[in-house]
Amino acid sequence: MLQGVSIKHLNQHLGEEVMLQGWLYNKRSSGKIQFLILRDGSGLVQGVMVKKEVDQETWAKANSLTQESSLRVWGIVREEPRAVGGYELQVTRLEIISLAAEYPITHKEHGVDFLADRRHLWIRTPRQSAILRIRSEIEHALREFFYQREFVLADAPIITPAACEGTTTLFEIDYHGNPAFLSQSGQLYSEATALALGKVYCFGPTFRAEKSKTRRHLMEFWMLEAEMAFYDLDDNMRLQEEMIMFVIDRVLHRCREDLKTLGRDTDRLASISVPFPRLSYTEAVELLRQKGVAFEWGDDFGAPEETLISENFNAPVFVHRYPTALKAFYMKPDPNQPEVVLGADLLAPEGYGEIIGGGQRIDDLTLLEQRLDEHGLPREAFEWYLDLRRYGSVPHAGFGLGIERTVAWICGLDHVREAIPFPRMLYRMYP
Amino acid sequence: MLQGVSIKHLNQHLGEEVMLQGWLYNKRSSGKIQFLILRDGSGLVQGVMVKKEVDQETWAKANSLTQESSLRVWGIVREEPRAVGGYELQVTRLEIISLAAEYPITHKEHGVDFLADRRHLWIRTPRQSAILRIRSEIEHALREFFYQREFVLADAPIITPAACEGTTTLFEIDYHGNPAFLSQSGQLYSEATALALGKVYCFGPTFRAEKSKTRRHLMEFWMLEAEMAFYDLDDNMRLQEEMIMFVIDRVLHRCREDLKTLGRDTDRLASISVPFPRLSYTEAVELLRQKGVAFEWGDDFGAPEETLISENFNAPVFVHRYPTALKAFYMKPDPNQPEVVLGADLLAPEGYGEIIGGGQRIDDLTLLEQRLDEHGLPREAFEWYLDLRRYGSVPHAGFGLGIERTVAWICGLDHVREAIPFPRMLYRMYP
Repeated sequence: MLQGVSIKHLNQHLGEEVMLQGWLYNKRSSGKIQFLILRDGSGLVQGVMVKKEVDQETWAKANSLTQESSLRVWGIVREEPRAVGGYELQVTRLEIISLAAEYPITHKEHGVDFLADRRHLWIRTPRQSAILRIRSEIEHALREFFYQREFVLADAPIITPAACEGTTTLFEIDYHGNPAFLSQSGQLYSEATALALGKVYCFGPTFRAEKSKTRRHLMEFWMLEAEMAFYDLDDNMRLQEEMIMFVIDRVLHRCREDLKTLGRDTDRLASISVPFPRLSYTEAVELLRQKGVAFEWGDDFGAPEETLISENFNAPVFVHRYPTALKAFYMKPDPNQPEVVLGADLLAPEGYGEIIGGGQRIDDLTLLEQRLDEHGLPREAFEWYLDLRRYGSVPHAGFGLGIERTVAWICGLDHVREAIPFPRMLYRMYP
Repeated sequence: MLQGVSIKHLNQHLGEEVMLQGWLYNKRSSGKIQFLILRDGSGLVQGVMVKKEVDQETWAKANSLTQESSLRVWGIVREEPRAVGGYELQVTRLEIISLAAEYPITHKEHGVDFLADRRHLWIRTPRQSAILRIRSEIEHALREFFYQREFVLADAPIITPAACEGTTTLFEIDYHGNPAFLSQSGQLYSEATALALGKVYCFGPTFRAEKSKTRRHLMEFWMLEAEMAFYDLDDNMRLQEEMIMFVIDRVLHRCREDLKTLGRDTDRLASISVPFPRLSYTEAVELLRQKGVAFEWGDDFGAPEETLISENFNAPVFVHRYPTALKAFYMKPDPNQPEVVLGADLLAPEGYGEIIGGGQRIDDLTLLEQRLDEHGLPREAFEWYLDLRRYGSVPHAGFGLGIERTVAWICGLDHVREAIPFPRMLYRMYP
């Protein structure tokens, strides 16, 4: 089948005649000139058709085009700084592939529910397409980061017999007559693969059946989880800041047009440098109190506290050594201060909140058994996990990065629902 | 924390003193010399400790090491063609991190169920680690292939309201009071993202609740699915053979040691070239009959037929234009021969069977509606999918590659259960 040039690469064809395949995004006409805004998934370009330069049939075809009709156009590429993308196409020929029925998403404003019901079409708009392209770039950058550092990708299972962090927020399935649950985290499995393969990551969908409707929560979201044998809390934080810098750099270089489409203030991203600030939980509590917040040591931070803390810094900020009681059973206590754990969360700037949770894991068998009991978790279900401390236990650490929150931050989105192709929310799983 | 050299990179440190962190895989002693086989996730190396060259304490430490104990060793790197990996370490110092309890997986033969129950430890053996590293390389190569070709990664949802290919093999979940299903394929969603973004792929876990126990089936498996606007059946096949060649080339170059560990005959892989042979279903039936198989036109191929067909070729073979009745509702009929569809499966050589299913999709609204009715699928659930034919329909095609089968073929495995870190099978979801 004919393969045209992609809009993204028009700059390589200045003055040439090219063929493009795509869809009509918008149209204006002056009676003598038709301006056809075309999209092809890689970008937008304006096609200019001058009546006296084409035959009647071509002019009539262009006239008949409805929004989102699919077509092939031939034309000469010209530089045009005023046009979207900086280039335009002087159209010489046009073929209609399929005339679209009246398109529901017009160029007027629509409500969010209306658009969400039509997510399969909404993703065609320049803003949504730009977000999805940036998401793709972020996901690939992450994988490349770990590949370059010789991590082994070890996919964690989705169907799991036991819960990683409590059972109240689990989706249950019937697994050939036995109850099973959709994974909330691949971490426990990654600890097993790290002790086999050294440095590993997994990157897949995770599930939380939370009855929450905040702008930061989805029922199904993608998480990158890395786990490293012989890493401590400090190694863990250094790896994370390198990773974030790698991603920012990649997006700034390869997604310029898309960031522009979103109106993202890229100076905020470009000014970030390492090392990221590091603040203990106790110092963060002090900071909140200095700001006049009555905050009790031992309480967890909510979104407002995270925003108050992170707005003091231009870069993401690590908050480390949270109270043991706030964190999961597997977190290693600080030997110098056992009431806190060797864990750290990374808070994104600009009020985007926690994007990473991580830390060093308990490597002592007796302590881990004790913690399981304290958390009321059934030891039988964790026997295999305990084995990791019976046979060749080593200090190890890891972290989980939430992709949709990271995309929301880098793109500057108000809500994570725009950060994934088909969001699953409390009252929405269609389309 | 101290970071040592990885075994894989010992060749860069010939004659130098290095530090390694890892686990004791095996040990032999002559009374005057101890041979410590160490693993660190990147490979194996033999450490040689000569009694008269170390102090008593170091010697005693080495003596006390049990299988899978974790340790740090210091030593000088020497070339040693007879040793595993081609290098050895003359050990000068040793620190025990954790002495392992008696390890259940010894160097004797164990039954498959025994090993499967201990998958979290089984993956530490050289063979299983090698397979998982090759799987990681294959998965990354696939992603790089599509990234280089400017495909957008558009993750498909796992929790879905409707079934893609029938409801009998679906895992059902309770989604906040409504029934929902685990995805069997991201394809329908990828068709939506392809019409927004041009060329897309998704790559995630998929689920089939099949009551089957063959060596080619898992309940949870990873699938790469690509979907391209403006691609026909031939474009689709060309892209697939390029992709397979890219993956083979990558694995042959970057996984030499691991392929050697598996005893894989790499000549079989290295001899593959493009174009792959292409056979119509009707020609394949002829071939079977020539081989004396009584096969009815219109029947589906099972594993034995796939093997009989593929053993005629040294490369993977495309079988295209299957009878319409055998394939899914969305497959586009061949305009020249409407009783067959413009689909093609790719059969791996050496009896590994189907690794790819793909084809061109119906782009005509009326025909698609008719097919939904014929297959007894509820039209309401597919309204969004029908929209893709109402608004800017274009010829498009795509395919799905099963990762575990591909890994099994490239590694030369008897069963897909070894091709994934934690297999989910009919009677197994632990650990």
